[in-house]
Amino acid sequence: MGQDAGGHDAGGHRGAGVTVGVVGAGQLGRMLQQAAIGIGVPLRFLGERADDPALAVAPSSELGSARSADDLERFAACCDVLTFEHELVDVDAVRGLERSGRVVHPSAAVLAAVADKVAMRRAVEAAGLPVPGWREVADAGELASAVATWPACAIKLSTGGYDGRGVFLVGEGDDGVAIGSPLLDAGCTLLVEPLLAFDAELAVVVARRPGGDAVAYDPVATLQIDGQCREVVAPAGIDDGLADEARSMALELAAALDVVGLLAVELFDVGGRLLVNELAVRPHNTAHHTIDACPTSQFEQHLRAVLDLPLGSTELFTPAAMVNVIGAADGADPRDHLAAGLATDPAARVHLYGKEARPNRKVGHVTVLDQDPVRAARRAWHVVAALRGDVPDRVAARMIGSVEQR
Amino acid sequence: MGQDAGGHDAGGHRGAGVTVGVVGAGQLGRMLQQAAIGIGVPLRFLGERADDPALAVAPSSELGSARSADDLERFAACCDVLTFEHELVDVDAVRGLERSGRVVHPSAAVLAAVADKVAMRRAVEAAGLPVPGWREVADAGELASAVATWPACAIKLSTGGYDGRGVFLVGEGDDGVAIGSPLLDAGCTLLVEPLLAFDAELAVVVARRPGGDAVAYDPVATLQIDGQCREVVAPAGIDDGLADEARSMALELAAALDVVGLLAVELFDVGGRLLVNELAVRPHNTAHHTIDACPTSQFEQHLRAVLDLPLGSTELFTPAAMVNVIGAADGADPRDHLAAGLATDPAARVHLYGKEARPNRKVGHVTVLDQDPVRAARRAWHVVAALRGDVPDRVAARMIGSVEQR
Repeated sequence: MGQDAGGHDAGGHRGAGVTVGVVGAGQLGRMLQQAAIGIGVPLRFLGERADDPALAVAPSSELGSARSADDLERFAACCDVLTFEHELVDVDAVRGLERSGRVVHPSAAVLAAVADKVAMRRAVEAAGLPVPGWREVADAGELASAVATWPACAIKLSTGGYDGRGVFLVGEGDDGVAIGSPLLDAGCTLLVEPLLAFDAELAVVVARRPGGDAVAYDPVATLQIDGQCREVVAPAGIDDGLADEARSMALELAAALDVVGLLAVELFDVGGRLLVNELAVRPHNTAHHTIDACPTSQFEQHLRAVLDLPLGSTELFTPAAMVNVIGAADGADPRDHLAAGLATDPAARVHLYGKEARPNRKVGHVTVLDQDPVRAARRAWHVVAALRGDVPDRVAARMIGSVEQR
Repeated sequence: MGQDAGGHDAGGHRGAGVTVGVVGAGQLGRMLQQAAIGIGVPLRFLGERADDPALAVAPSSELGSARSADDLERFAACCDVLTFEHELVDVDAVRGLERSGRVVHPSAAVLAAVADKVAMRRAVEAAGLPVPGWREVADAGELASAVATWPACAIKLSTGGYDGRGVFLVGEGDDGVAIGSPLLDAGCTLLVEPLLAFDAELAVVVARRPGGDAVAYDPVATLQIDGQCREVVAPAGIDDGLADEARSMALELAAALDVVGLLAVELFDVGGRLLVNELAVRPHNTAHHTIDACPTSQFEQHLRAVLDLPLGSTELFTPAAMVNVIGAADGADPRDHLAAGLATDPAARVHLYGKEARPNRKVGHVTVLDQDPVRAARRAWHVVAALRGDVPDRVAARMIGSVEQR
């Protein structure tokens, strides 16, 4: 860890005028921009479309593709540090940028390890940490063998999946071969794993600096529906030993992969045994509550890490719950129901991403701080329902009902 | 209060696509932009200089003068609601905008009442609330009479003062006539008031909607040095009765003036008697802690109010202290000392405004949440000292010393 003359941990930050280039301009970039304004760090975004959520709030940006080596090179030339708000990046191009001396966090090697679900599982195993059973499936024979072993399984595209897309659930009575074959025919590599009866889905987000300094947020409990995160409760409601173990595993993985920036680790709790399910190396939906419930949000933490600045406190002020605002089937726009949402709960923190509402699209989130995390979740679901125009929603109705009965 | 069909308080917000025009683009505008990103409201700024703090973080802005009727008219034409982040505005031009049907919050009448210290005192008196003794002084005879009445007094420019500028302190042995005469000769109207031996300086910020709905934050204790706010502690450490009275007075004033947006009321506590000293109708330095210590910050509250959206909770999560980062005499730039500042206290919230550091210029603030507000203040002063490069600073040294002894 660097020390400046005054004895402070000055790290690698070079003061005023250092611009961070962010590849990607979705809501994660948008929330990075809010954090960057706070600590006075200028960001520049590479977005794909003029209406990307971060571009609407960023004075400095350009359009281009994260999968184009030319676009990445041109963009990197205008920035002092390059980072990412999604992982769908041309990793070879990033490797080229590193060779030409650009500062890139996280590194191409880290991006490669998470760009592909098979690579990700291997990286976790190489770090000596447990994962669910899994098979790489590249042909019909391997597919038949995998679904014979696990009649109830998940078939996942190894690359390109996101937010529940690219995941196909196979029940006991389903024909896994029929589901998987067209994907193989399309040239995809698959990862097949058994459906697990887990007690909880947990997530831990770690921030890590170039020298290895790292901090971990408390584990949270997440609720995924159709592969999409819908609710996060912090703390996770697990015992302290398990929480410590989850944090240790995430810190260990960040060190093993040499992540600089954020690492989000999603875990299954199966009868008190933790299995690493997914990784992401960017701000993560499971830590949005840190904006309102922790001294330093995951977004500011990401910026501190890639700028090699001292990391902030991850303490949770008070229990909190976050519920995503998902586009309603009728296309109701939460921006048109903002007044109703705000009126529902004056202490709720409503975050809207400036995105057009389309069915199943994440267009915002609501965080509620409450000494009782179950009540926090119920309150957040009520606000979300109002933001969706009180359109009857199976999931919201069930959650509002179920959390009231918990 | 408006009610929509669903029984929610929908207010006057017209949903997606409503742009708020903000006249002024300093740090208050910058923090408004952070809040606006959160709730998905697009802002457009009218700034005076290309390097104004808000312009560096806002994708939509134009350059022009708040004192030019033409510039204001052109700017207002591009916005749905017009508001202000400072009061140095051409009030007649704003009146013209209102006549032409523009939505302007706060109104020209409110701006007129606070643009001028004499008008402000009269407005407070008209609302039936107590103020310190004061005299309007427009000629040599009035000046001589005022300083004879109060040999120890403050001579204030009635208009144009800001952040301690335009205030001249006259001690018992000083020649008040010699100090005031050149100001009169320059054509200024003065306000003369006795120097008060107060127990505390307090401030209350109120947010108020067009229909009259209003909320008040808890009173805070402020420390002013040379007329400039340096430290804010919340809660104020006064008894509940006095806190209630301060809140009531601020709400009463907001109603009497028909403020829409924010009203900041600065008060003297003189032996348990509250006197209204100053008003501002915009986000205020004495409520910056609300960003980190309350469910709804004053900045989001301002946007909600001018958009006629339901107001948020003003609850203080936990005691907090805020200390301003003031440009050091040696011109040290806090952006160059950010690592040292962050390393000093991992839980401190550092806010930098992206401004060039000049002596006595506010370039940022630090908020610390702590169950013990005195410790919060001490911690914040330590971070501020580090951000100033540990340059020996009379005030900081005294504060760090004194709060340790409190």
